[in-house]
Amino acid sequence: MEIKKLNEKYKDFIGKSVTVCGWIKNHRTSSNVGFIDFNDGTGFKGIQLVYSKDNENYESLSHLRVGSALRVTGIVRESDGEKQAFEVEIESYILEGDAQEDYPIQPKRHSREFLREQAYLRPRTNLFNAVFRIRSLASFAIHEYFQKNGYMYVHTPILTASDCEGAGEMFQVTTLDLDKLRGVDEIDFSKDFFGKKTGLTVSGQLEAETFAMAFSKVYTFGPTFRAENSNTTSHLAEFWMMEPEIAFCDLEGLMDIEEEMLKYVINYCLENGKEEMAFLDEFVEKGLINKLTKLVKSDFKRISHEEVITILKNADVKWQFAPEYGEDIAKEHEKYITEYFDGPVFITNWPKDIKAFYMKQNDDGKTVRAVDLEVPGIGELMGGSQREEDYDKLVARMHELGMDEHEMEWYINLRKYGTCTHSGFGMGFERLVMYLTGIENIRDVIPYFRTPNNCDF
Amino acid sequence: MEIKKLNEKYKDFIGKSVTVCGWIKNHRTSSNVGFIDFNDGTGFKGIQLVYSKDNENYESLSHLRVGSALRVTGIVRESDGEKQAFEVEIESYILEGDAQEDYPIQPKRHSREFLREQAYLRPRTNLFNAVFRIRSLASFAIHEYFQKNGYMYVHTPILTASDCEGAGEMFQVTTLDLDKLRGVDEIDFSKDFFGKKTGLTVSGQLEAETFAMAFSKVYTFGPTFRAENSNTTSHLAEFWMMEPEIAFCDLEGLMDIEEEMLKYVINYCLENGKEEMAFLDEFVEKGLINKLTKLVKSDFKRISHEEVITILKNADVKWQFAPEYGEDIAKEHEKYITEYFDGPVFITNWPKDIKAFYMKQNDDGKTVRAVDLEVPGIGELMGGSQREEDYDKLVARMHELGMDEHEMEWYINLRKYGTCTHSGFGMGFERLVMYLTGIENIRDVIPYFRTPNNCDF
Repeated sequence: MEIKKLNEKYKDFIGKSVTVCGWIKNHRTSSNVGFIDFNDGTGFKGIQLVYSKDNENYESLSHLRVGSALRVTGIVRESDGEKQAFEVEIESYILEGDAQEDYPIQPKRHSREFLREQAYLRPRTNLFNAVFRIRSLASFAIHEYFQKNGYMYVHTPILTASDCEGAGEMFQVTTLDLDKLRGVDEIDFSKDFFGKKTGLTVSGQLEAETFAMAFSKVYTFGPTFRAENSNTTSHLAEFWMMEPEIAFCDLEGLMDIEEEMLKYVINYCLENGKEEMAFLDEFVEKGLINKLTKLVKSDFKRISHEEVITILKNADVKWQFAPEYGEDIAKEHEKYITEYFDGPVFITNWPKDIKAFYMKQNDDGKTVRAVDLEVPGIGELMGGSQREEDYDKLVARMHELGMDEHEMEWYINLRKYGTCTHSGFGMGFERLVMYLTGIENIRDVIPYFRTPNNCDF
Repeated sequence: MEIKKLNEKYKDFIGKSVTVCGWIKNHRTSSNVGFIDFNDGTGFKGIQLVYSKDNENYESLSHLRVGSALRVTGIVRESDGEKQAFEVEIESYILEGDAQEDYPIQPKRHSREFLREQAYLRPRTNLFNAVFRIRSLASFAIHEYFQKNGYMYVHTPILTASDCEGAGEMFQVTTLDLDKLRGVDEIDFSKDFFGKKTGLTVSGQLEAETFAMAFSKVYTFGPTFRAENSNTTSHLAEFWMMEPEIAFCDLEGLMDIEEEMLKYVINYCLENGKEEMAFLDEFVEKGLINKLTKLVKSDFKRISHEEVITILKNADVKWQFAPEYGEDIAKEHEKYITEYFDGPVFITNWPKDIKAFYMKQNDDGKTVRAVDLEVPGIGELMGGSQREEDYDKLVARMHELGMDEHEMEWYINLRKYGTCTHSGFGMGFERLVMYLTGIENIRDVIPYFRTPNNCDF
């Protein structure tokens, strides 16, 4: 039986024989008794196996190594130990797979750097067991929130020929034989797989908009790519992004959705990942659960970029970067403003020159109906906007930015064929998992990280 | 309010004023009365708006074009019409966005070929509305099945440096400036983004196995790529695949899971997509609902490849391809065998030479513990196997196949560090959606299809 279920229902099995499978997490013997910490990973918490000299296999049992896989049959007994309510007294076992002596994951503290090099083994540690389970729960919570609320999940394409947002940050995809390019005068992309230059998407938003014009409420959730040469603790070349898009929804409505969704996902993880959260609270970020619970109970502040700059200018702080109307805000400003309001802050109506072409222009000619959600301790968690639904304004803005509207005819045509008020946002999923787990390096919240010069496993 | 909700609860609103947003699907006037078929896409079924000469906006209303987006306030009235129980009598409206005269999606039958060219508009048709909603429901059903049953969702990487299965079918990913390659003697991949040659994954299985060795029960569900130059109705260069991997599970256990999961997903779509299914049953595949209901109620047959060949050889059929022990089976054989058993058939223990290196070798030296699920009307829907958990046998098989085990050291190391009986399968998600919807061309079950020379939108 699964160890998670045995932990939940052990009382029904006291005195009875059970068969469990799993791996040895720790193994110690003392005066004729052996104790094995054992888990199959179905839950965070394992069980204790015990055996004594009376067991005919005592000798072979006592030599079992950490990391080995066993199939064990034994009797469930109430335990006197402080750490567990019950234990399983081994009657018989099968060694499914030994762990060789050089098994790297020993029951001691390993550095995260070391574990990154052993990324294929690190989910076997308590830390990564907790992190990746929270990741899985948060993924499902996102799906559940949107499905319950009538959204359509749309798989926007990964391969794309348009590069509207990620100028210069797009991975190119090809089936051309690069070796054979060495002799040619000009590269003939008509001979490439798709007959033209293609790359990996930097956002599914534009395609999601086409579906919002049919289903009103849609979301994408999938991998996204940036070929940005950044070796920081917060950048990945491959990451997951969640992007809802909602027709007949303005910026106020969008903020309602962002707030409700975030609270839903956090609540889901707190309720369904109790043991993992308790572990992370104890060993990774003290106060993690309080931080998350506080956020769920808070009302998110809504304030314009202009008001934020005024607050920053009036603050009695010596800024590294002087806050300015019409400019972006720095990390130190984000931090100050979330502390100022002691909670999450939606900052709206940003200067148009620092935001994307598709955002709805305000009448002032200077700002757009963009919104960033700033969260204490993590900074920007979501970025969204009401979209420019006016054909002429959209095309004019593209011209101002030197964009060729013909390459995106399908996108701007949405404004010719039943355009409407609509809004959407994006949330980098790893950023959320970092917030949920307290993990500070983005490499440690994704199974296999891809960064400059790292594409292992 | 959302039109889906109004349809569900219209009785509560009879005689009351409501505001709805959506698009005009059809518009006709007759003797001083106008009728508008109206939907926001939140559900399959729309509503009818009516207005008469008494409306001060009669003139402008009567000129509204199909495809236009409106925000309408009106009174809910019981309707005398046969097609609807209620209608909304327009009091006032705002034209959110006109549809220009050249709007391609008119209320008539469009060919699927035409709609592929207009892929960004096709979700607005009834057909694609139904198909993409079933796709969304099936996606969620997969997540819900696995999460309810204690599986961990693992996001296996898309970018990868290993190409174990898809020799020659892998898209290459690069940030090298291809133009600059023209002068060089040798391509220096150490200067590429990842410092080596990388491509797009053809399967997440191997990485999923690493997580199964920590969590016991995991699944991946994400985009997968094949640079196969196939222009058929069943191949895509980019498609979604679902791959569970389960530790301490043998081939029999795997088949139990496959059967249970498939039935769960089908039931979920039948229950949550009633209107869509009824439409698809009427207009796409007559008998679709019966077909699906029958499958859910059936017990899947389990039979070995050898037995299948014997049945085929004994059949009174003139085969285009003669069935042979030790060889793969053809489409005509798949069809025969599902008809022979009048239901889904698991075919097990395939000749090892036509299956992948990682499958568990049987003692006969000839076969592996692979299983394909053959389903009436669609053929192979899932492919899986018990994995070879023995280090020596796995490496020996890799050598036989001329593979370099050093490139996959992490994968074969799983057999050194607590290896165990484990199994998994893969299901091409589009294949499932085709089966669920009756759609015969794979291009019509994915939002934006990628095939040779097609990478639009």
